[in-house]
Amino acid sequence: MKTAAYVGNRTIEVREAERPEPGPGQARVRVSHVGLCGTDLHVFHGDMDARVTIPAILGHEMSGTIDALGPGVTGHAPGDAVTVLPLAWDGTCPACRAGNEHICQHLDFIGVDTPGALQEFWIVDASTLVAIPAGVPGRDAALVEPVAVAVHDVRRGEVAPGDAVVVIGGGPIGSLIATVARHAGARVAVAEIDAGRREAVARLGFETIDPGGGPGDDPGSGPAAWVDRWTGGAGADVVFEVSGSEAGVLTATALAKVRGTVVVVAIHPRPRPVDLHRVFWRELRILGARVYQRTDFETAIGLVADGTVPVDDLVSAVVPIEELGGAFGRLERGEAMKILVSVGEGGVGESPDEGVGR
Amino acid sequence: MKTAAYVGNRTIEVREAERPEPGPGQARVRVSHVGLCGTDLHVFHGDMDARVTIPAILGHEMSGTIDALGPGVTGHAPGDAVTVLPLAWDGTCPACRAGNEHICQHLDFIGVDTPGALQEFWIVDASTLVAIPAGVPGRDAALVEPVAVAVHDVRRGEVAPGDAVVVIGGGPIGSLIATVARHAGARVAVAEIDAGRREAVARLGFETIDPGGGPGDDPGSGPAAWVDRWTGGAGADVVFEVSGSEAGVLTATALAKVRGTVVVVAIHPRPRPVDLHRVFWRELRILGARVYQRTDFETAIGLVADGTVPVDDLVSAVVPIEELGGAFGRLERGEAMKILVSVGEGGVGESPDEGVGR
Repeated sequence: MKTAAYVGNRTIEVREAERPEPGPGQARVRVSHVGLCGTDLHVFHGDMDARVTIPAILGHEMSGTIDALGPGVTGHAPGDAVTVLPLAWDGTCPACRAGNEHICQHLDFIGVDTPGALQEFWIVDASTLVAIPAGVPGRDAALVEPVAVAVHDVRRGEVAPGDAVVVIGGGPIGSLIATVARHAGARVAVAEIDAGRREAVARLGFETIDPGGGPGDDPGSGPAAWVDRWTGGAGADVVFEVSGSEAGVLTATALAKVRGTVVVVAIHPRPRPVDLHRVFWRELRILGARVYQRTDFETAIGLVADGTVPVDDLVSAVVPIEELGGAFGRLERGEAMKILVSVGEGGVGESPDEGVGR
Repeated sequence: MKTAAYVGNRTIEVREAERPEPGPGQARVRVSHVGLCGTDLHVFHGDMDARVTIPAILGHEMSGTIDALGPGVTGHAPGDAVTVLPLAWDGTCPACRAGNEHICQHLDFIGVDTPGALQEFWIVDASTLVAIPAGVPGRDAALVEPVAVAVHDVRRGEVAPGDAVVVIGGGPIGSLIATVARHAGARVAVAEIDAGRREAVARLGFETIDPGGGPGDDPGSGPAAWVDRWTGGAGADVVFEVSGSEAGVLTATALAKVRGTVVVVAIHPRPRPVDLHRVFWRELRILGARVYQRTDFETAIGLVADGTVPVDDLVSAVVPIEELGGAFGRLERGEAMKILVSVGEGGVGESPDEGVGR
């Protein structure tokens, strides 16, 4: 079978490997599609060389079907369409004991800390499997993981019907958060510095804010003045910081209403200046939100299956596994929103009605 | 009657003035005691000259008795012991309409934005009066306002019985937060950089942490290692940032457990570096907490009246109004925890059993 591995120095190697056998409690999944995300790009850049074991088979946004089951696995059958919840917790740390397994103090992220889905057949613990309903295309099901991130973020932010929500950063996760928040009944604006991404977000039906110059016909106003008008002087109920930028953090607190919420979704590699006087003055709430819980996966599957997630608009390209290195290049040049790798045979360019698991 | 006013340039002037008459809906309060706080000290330093109107009569931590009532005031009678909730909201802004009058978008703070209690007779809106039970000494009742701050902070932090709580900053507000959190059933440690204040906090029965060198017999460990041991590797449930320092903010997120809470109590005049990666990684919650609501005053009165608040330990000195300028000097040199000004006659050095309102 084929595997694609990061081998250091911005290099991906596609290799042949033996098809692995599932051990007790494990499943062998025939991989259909794998989405590439910012974390994968960080690995490709070498930023995470201290964390990954080279050669590193990446891939944690995926879809596939069960190919074989190891001894002792119940509740699943070969042929079932699945995705994988790519978290491995220890179950014993204080966070796990308090019910927060998803942010276990010793969490392994499958596809980063351990081998991922960029291989034709993937061995996973059966406990990580999440069933995909029949009829959901493999292309679409590969978006369940990033949608689950957005579901978790929106749930963490306690977005309620009628809320004014601002998402700072209009990339794939920002667009999915906006989509999930709108589905929760909020009105949503997305602040995005890149004009092309702003247009893509507008095509999804969201208000857009140009953090550089203010929106539309009021170029000098800035996001705070725009949100002030948009909310009748109140400010936003919930702001999602998805940009990872220093400016995004300061904008987030500036936009939030009295007792409003800022959800920190992005990874900020360094401590960022935060306007704690504003946090104090308006009694703001800043919440970290990381990965997801199984309930978020289940909600995400529903949103993918029922068409709430605009898969066609989000997926820029589906490429074969041999083009993985080139796909990373397109992502880092900002030429694509979401690129999927078609790992299984015949998946490239498949139409949405070719479901997995049928 | 005597008044004491900040007249600029680090100068207090005590003047004679006419005894004022209460208008409709107002009360004239005979002031007993006034506590000095950090905000007053900021005004004395000239940091708030752009905000206050000079000459500025300060004072918002106070006790007294009703001396006279203006037309239309019901529910109060001359001779009643009272304190004042020193907030004036507009009632019409989005924050007020959402029930957050205490952090009204156009809040006036009485004693800063409008004249305060450092005068023998003080005219206030009757709506700001809060009744003090008979038998509570005027000296003690003057602590209700800072205790209400602590009550609000602890309530905002949702401190629960058994919680491990760390307070960063062992001044008057930090000590009161520690006291209220302990009363709520938490076990409490206070991190304080000043050795003298650390000793004062230890005398109140709290664990203490030296942020410079780690506590006790493990001087090299630092607060995070100490809290780790103290909590069996989990981290603190709730951390209160009361130091106002850059280091305090970074320490606060370092000490909090997975899904733990950091309450921002202190005023940070500039944006501070915050470890947002930790906020994300542990799904922390950062909450701003400002002033109080009436329910916090009512709770605070109970904690003062029943002896939960260690008034004798917290009050460093009671001085006559003529010594106000000197008292600010003692505060800025760190020579005192809490200084009260005895405004009414004969109050200096009064014993705790001389209640107001009897």
